[in-house]
Amino acid sequence: MGWTFEAWNEVKCAQVEAALAQWVPEQAPADLGQAMRYAVLGGGKRLRPLLAMAACESVQGEVHAALRAGCAAELIHAYSLVHDDMPCMDNDVLRRGKPTVHVKFGQASALLAGDALQALAFELLTPQDGSVSAAVQAQLCGLLARAAGEAGMAGGQAIDLASIGQQLSQAQLRRMHELKTGALLQASVMMGAACGNASKAQLTALQSYGQAIGLAFQVVDDILDVTADSATLGKTAGKDALAGKPTYVSILGMQPSQDLAKHLHLQALAALKTGELQQTQALHALADWVVARAY
Amino acid sequence: MGWTFEAWNEVKCAQVEAALAQWVPEQAPADLGQAMRYAVLGGGKRLRPLLAMAACESVQGEVHAALRAGCAAELIHAYSLVHDDMPCMDNDVLRRGKPTVHVKFGQASALLAGDALQALAFELLTPQDGSVSAAVQAQLCGLLARAAGEAGMAGGQAIDLASIGQQLSQAQLRRMHELKTGALLQASVMMGAACGNASKAQLTALQSYGQAIGLAFQVVDDILDVTADSATLGKTAGKDALAGKPTYVSILGMQPSQDLAKHLHLQALAALKTGELQQTQALHALADWVVARAY
Repeated sequence: MGWTFEAWNEVKCAQVEAALAQWVPEQAPADLGQAMRYAVLGGGKRLRPLLAMAACESVQGEVHAALRAGCAAELIHAYSLVHDDMPCMDNDVLRRGKPTVHVKFGQASALLAGDALQALAFELLTPQDGSVSAAVQAQLCGLLARAAGEAGMAGGQAIDLASIGQQLSQAQLRRMHELKTGALLQASVMMGAACGNASKAQLTALQSYGQAIGLAFQVVDDILDVTADSATLGKTAGKDALAGKPTYVSILGMQPSQDLAKHLHLQALAALKTGELQQTQALHALADWVVARAY
Repeated sequence: MGWTFEAWNEVKCAQVEAALAQWVPEQAPADLGQAMRYAVLGGGKRLRPLLAMAACESVQGEVHAALRAGCAAELIHAYSLVHDDMPCMDNDVLRRGKPTVHVKFGQASALLAGDALQALAFELLTPQDGSVSAAVQAQLCGLLARAAGEAGMAGGQAIDLASIGQQLSQAQLRRMHELKTGALLQASVMMGAACGNASKAQLTALQSYGQAIGLAFQVVDDILDVTADSATLGKTAGKDALAGKPTYVSILGMQPSQDLAKHLHLQALAALKTGELQQTQALHALADWVVARAY
């Protein structure tokens, strides 16, 4: 029987869920642990961990390190959703079909849970048991910090905030998304690569792959915000348009947005063929999935 | 002329201010850079960087690594103040004699600036120019993440939140403060130690020193919240009592709190004599200052 994405995905997702359930602490003080676990467990596509593990496979790296790296990226993603949903930001009450963290636990606990999840990401990257070399730990921390901070996700969110009700050029919109979601998706790929001894050609290929799917993800997100309903999305549909946020669809129109997604998809697949990568089935399938996903 | 704390402090503070001014980026998107710099620059006692640099001296470690480590701890401290001041937490409008970040920049920007400062802390610890070894980078990231997260600062804040209007035992109050402020102060000391090849005896001594002054700091803070006025403190005085927060003064009374501070002071100084440490003048003077400070 040959390799199938379904089987790979099932095995990897189970590993990620088990790892997160173990690493996000139940016993944190007061309701902090509960709020952190609520924000992270039992939902989400786990795209970032899957990307890290797929990239690790493509350079025959250390699987357990990539699992940590991917889960760390997932914690950064999860914390950003918690803070993003708060009343002073998007003020959203529904996420993955459940009440958002601040609705369930209160704003103060949501704020703290997000803060603690960001710290926990760096705890995951620095295990004290010798299972990940110091060199890899340092590289992973450096990649994740830069993807999360002002030159990455937080910077993108600042542009997003400042753009409400503004006209953005396509270049400005692209810049916003490269930071807001692209940087962390790309870092997930590069962290996976850092778990092996990737060659320069391999790193270049993965960089290009990560950039293309990072952007494709957001273009598809903007399309789905228009075409899908809240039940399918598990979050409030149409909210970007409602909030006056510029999107690919609002700037380019629907058909050109769909064309752009296809173009980025092909770009990602082309990158996989250039870099002397080993096993690329999972990276290939994830690129397909990012563009074809219906939710 | 002999060593004086005043001269040492002046030199080190100038280094810290210059480093922070360089490392906290002005050019971050939208007003994110401004908000981050407003939160960090031009104020604060810089106790955490001073502790890191003093501890580094005591084990003859790498000074430039300790400067990074101390500034990283300072960024974690600064972000915690930004988030702590927000309306959903302490709702404070005055900090270091200036309007708090959310008053000046709005809540959304304050939230993001805090998030970005936490990420920036780990960026500082992972310079890409080879100036800090991977082994030291990994150790520093591990220490800082654990001090900032659910088993450290964020955990302590969760207890703090849950304790408003509650009766705490002295042991519970101590546990709260060990996490909320003690963990990061102690981590500052241990990060300084990680910048050198500290012996086991040296690490034990510094651990004990860090624990004592971490707690002493909070006891003195509680005393000052009662005895000092807002202008001297640069923040709203008496707010803990007003908010129904348990403090050392409310639980033990004023005189026993002052006795406890003195006891912890002596404990810190005793630790410095046990560990074959090299230069301990600065650590000694910082312990004096933590207890004797009038603001």
